[in-house]
Amino acid sequence: MARRGRRVGDADTRMQILEAARSAFARVGYDAATIRLIAADAGVDPALIHHYFGNKEDLFAEAVHVPFRPADAILGAFGPGIDGAGERIARLFFTIWDAEPSREAVLGQLRRSLVNPDAPAPFAEFISSALLRRAVGHLRGLHRELRLELMASQLVGLAMVRYVMKIEPVASAPLDELIAHVAPRIQTYLEESFLP
Amino acid sequence: MARRGRRVGDADTRMQILEAARSAFARVGYDAATIRLIAADAGVDPALIHHYFGNKEDLFAEAVHVPFRPADAILGAFGPGIDGAGERIARLFFTIWDAEPSREAVLGQLRRSLVNPDAPAPFAEFISSALLRRAVGHLRGLHRELRLELMASQLVGLAMVRYVMKIEPVASAPLDELIAHVAPRIQTYLEESFLP
Repeated sequence: MARRGRRVGDADTRMQILEAARSAFARVGYDAATIRLIAADAGVDPALIHHYFGNKEDLFAEAVHVPFRPADAILGAFGPGIDGAGERIARLFFTIWDAEPSREAVLGQLRRSLVNPDAPAPFAEFISSALLRRAVGHLRGLHRELRLELMASQLVGLAMVRYVMKIEPVASAPLDELIAHVAPRIQTYLEESFLP
Repeated sequence: MARRGRRVGDADTRMQILEAARSAFARVGYDAATIRLIAADAGVDPALIHHYFGNKEDLFAEAVHVPFRPADAILGAFGPGIDGAGERIARLFFTIWDAEPSREAVLGQLRRSLVNPDAPAPFAEFISSALLRRAVGHLRGLHRELRLELMASQLVGLAMVRYVMKIEPVASAPLDELIAHVAPRIQTYLEESFLP
């Protein structure tokens, strides 16, 4: 394999990889932007990307400022069991929105989806590939993917109403109060006993 | 009162009023755009607007292609009682999204909110003023406004995931299947027995 362009590991190389990654994710989407493609764009060896960033989902998380590692997030939410998972997920979700850079990344993605519905939607693919697909194994019963995504849609809608549309009283309610209301509802999506 | 500019009631006048209304709602928002202001912009008497369109909420609904009258919608949802209201509301909500012009109006509003967070958000104000505030009287128990809006946020999020972010399996699921899952959850927001 040609090693042209491979550089010593320094901050510039990391930046260069992150820029190539952001550009590739935006251009072709999350699933189609392989480590190999990003490495070629950045002029580095794919192994160097794995060395610096771990796997693709961790690279994406770092590139778009998602403030957690997907695998850790799912383990944190479901590891202690299905009881209370709704609340843990709601809290994790709002750490994204409370962190300025990741909120901007999500809003930027939504803007692009609204302006150009056919453009790649790397954030949506990431949610689907790195989070929902991994969480499925922790649920029991029918329609597990659908239930997980409907649960996610409650959180997306809450963020829209609170941070984008800014409708009161949700816009100004303390986050703990919102979570107290929403957590038991999203919990019903996670449990088998509440199927239609 | 000066009657300069008042015209005979014809299709052109209706169009002129609707255009003035759309422009005023976008410029100053739903609550601040009074019938009097819209009448002045359109060069007609306020009484003519009432005559053609009823009250402000009906004028807004017609101007931005909301395919129902707010008062009728709330009566339809809550008139038969709180039982089943969640499902009736979910179905009504999706008649907005299924109607092309109103979907475009909602998406246009979301686009503007995302691009310019400080711009007036007439659609959000309309939901709050014409729908949520009126629905409150049909609920019992604490936190009624908050619960109603959280219920609405579930629907907003479902629409985002299905129509804007287009994440599977929600994007392609039959609407009846989605409603079967979501209606019992949003119903919990309407009932007193499921308070945190």
